[in-house]
Amino acid sequence: MRYKYKKMTRRPLILVTNDDGITAPGVRALISVMNELGDVVVVAPDSPQSGMGHAITINSTLFCDKIKIDDGPQIEYQSSGTPADCVKLAVSEILNRKPDLCVSGINHGSNASINVIYSGTMSAAIEGGIEGIPSIGFSLLDYAWSANFEHLKSYIKRITENVLENGLPDGVVLNVNFPKSVEFNGIKICRQARANWVEEMDKRINPHGKEYYWLTGKFVDLDGGEDTDIWALNNNYVSVVPVQFDLTAHHFIQKLNSWKM
Amino acid sequence: MRYKYKKMTRRPLILVTNDDGITAPGVRALISVMNELGDVVVVAPDSPQSGMGHAITINSTLFCDKIKIDDGPQIEYQSSGTPADCVKLAVSEILNRKPDLCVSGINHGSNASINVIYSGTMSAAIEGGIEGIPSIGFSLLDYAWSANFEHLKSYIKRITENVLENGLPDGVVLNVNFPKSVEFNGIKICRQARANWVEEMDKRINPHGKEYYWLTGKFVDLDGGEDTDIWALNNNYVSVVPVQFDLTAHHFIQKLNSWKM
Repeated sequence: MRYKYKKMTRRPLILVTNDDGITAPGVRALISVMNELGDVVVVAPDSPQSGMGHAITINSTLFCDKIKIDDGPQIEYQSSGTPADCVKLAVSEILNRKPDLCVSGINHGSNASINVIYSGTMSAAIEGGIEGIPSIGFSLLDYAWSANFEHLKSYIKRITENVLENGLPDGVVLNVNFPKSVEFNGIKICRQARANWVEEMDKRINPHGKEYYWLTGKFVDLDGGEDTDIWALNNNYVSVVPVQFDLTAHHFIQKLNSWKM
Repeated sequence: MRYKYKKMTRRPLILVTNDDGITAPGVRALISVMNELGDVVVVAPDSPQSGMGHAITINSTLFCDKIKIDDGPQIEYQSSGTPADCVKLAVSEILNRKPDLCVSGINHGSNASINVIYSGTMSAAIEGGIEGIPSIGFSLLDYAWSANFEHLKSYIKRITENVLENGLPDGVVLNVNFPKSVEFNGIKICRQARANWVEEMDKRINPHGKEYYWLTGKFVDLDGGEDTDIWALNNNYVSVVPVQFDLTAHHFIQKLNSWKM
């Protein structure tokens, strides 16, 4: 049974993308949910793009090819670009009208707290928001390729239906994270926890005698508030953070004006 | 004559980086200003990284080599990583104490308005801010490699001295943009203008008959406010926007809580 939209007279057009690449189990699960809600077009990277932040491809070329991966009704394209490139390609070249929704994920790994800054998944959702499309990024706190996404589907459907019905304000997208758990306590609307990564560069010597590094690190929650995404996830809730891309620190403008410059 | 810091008993340690690469004239100009203000360590990409957003390198290795480019007193390293990687490398591997300041740029090209999202220059400044270092990104609205940076230096010095003296609040960095002009009307504290890029994909056929794209676009100011960075730059002012990396859209949390999820 297809969901009946109160405000939409036609079936919604849904753009799906991700940053783990078009064959990742996370995006395949997301596509299967979206097929129940609308007409789906997938434009996703042909290879993993994790940690790409809001990178766009301006100094090299972009390829984009139509492909068929499974028997679903969706139309799919894979691109050599970043997640943000995929949204730009979809809007300007592939789709003949602006989609009603852009969803990104399901990411294999957390995009909660400060991870939103480094996230290719969220960069695609933010790019959707910049283009004026209601957009959501979904992530599961499980890096495994074999992670189970099945029990996320009813939550994703409910959140997505809410966005389709209520819309989102101009300049706001949603960052949804799921704890690694077989059952959830519910959904919590949260703010982004203040946190950072304390880097631990893993220094090695290559076979030619040259030093190199692997970037690793330890996530440190500097917050402690019970209204944050980290708290929600630690307490087995699905976290939903409204995210904006006006980065202005409005609270500091008055003070800055008092500086002697 | 060296600047006397009111609050600092030692000469400040200044980390310099950029996204156009360590040999770009913009970063060389920035280094020359910072040498007047403190002890300078440069950790910058070995090649251009424009449009890299807040990308970090997690699926490949990082190289980092000490080099000497000119006769200045600064110590320099070039890295195969992104601007954000450079800050992480500097803080965790190269510097033996947290720097007093992190500056990024001078970027060859604008990082005003929505460009802050796509900017490697600003990603380095934001990474500095995440690490708890007062940080500033500088950009000039001139993409030319041969752009003139000389007349920016006194402004950069004044803004930097203010940051060293006053500090910046936790979670806030500065985004400074200079208009393409030989003389400026002064400095304006601004908010980020609401704007986007309307993509114009330049579609071509390669010698093997395969379609590919160059990503291009037209910048569209959707704002019109006289308190924005775009207004300031259009009116020949140096724009200073305080930027935060808590992306939470706090104003939408209450409404979201009323959704039936």
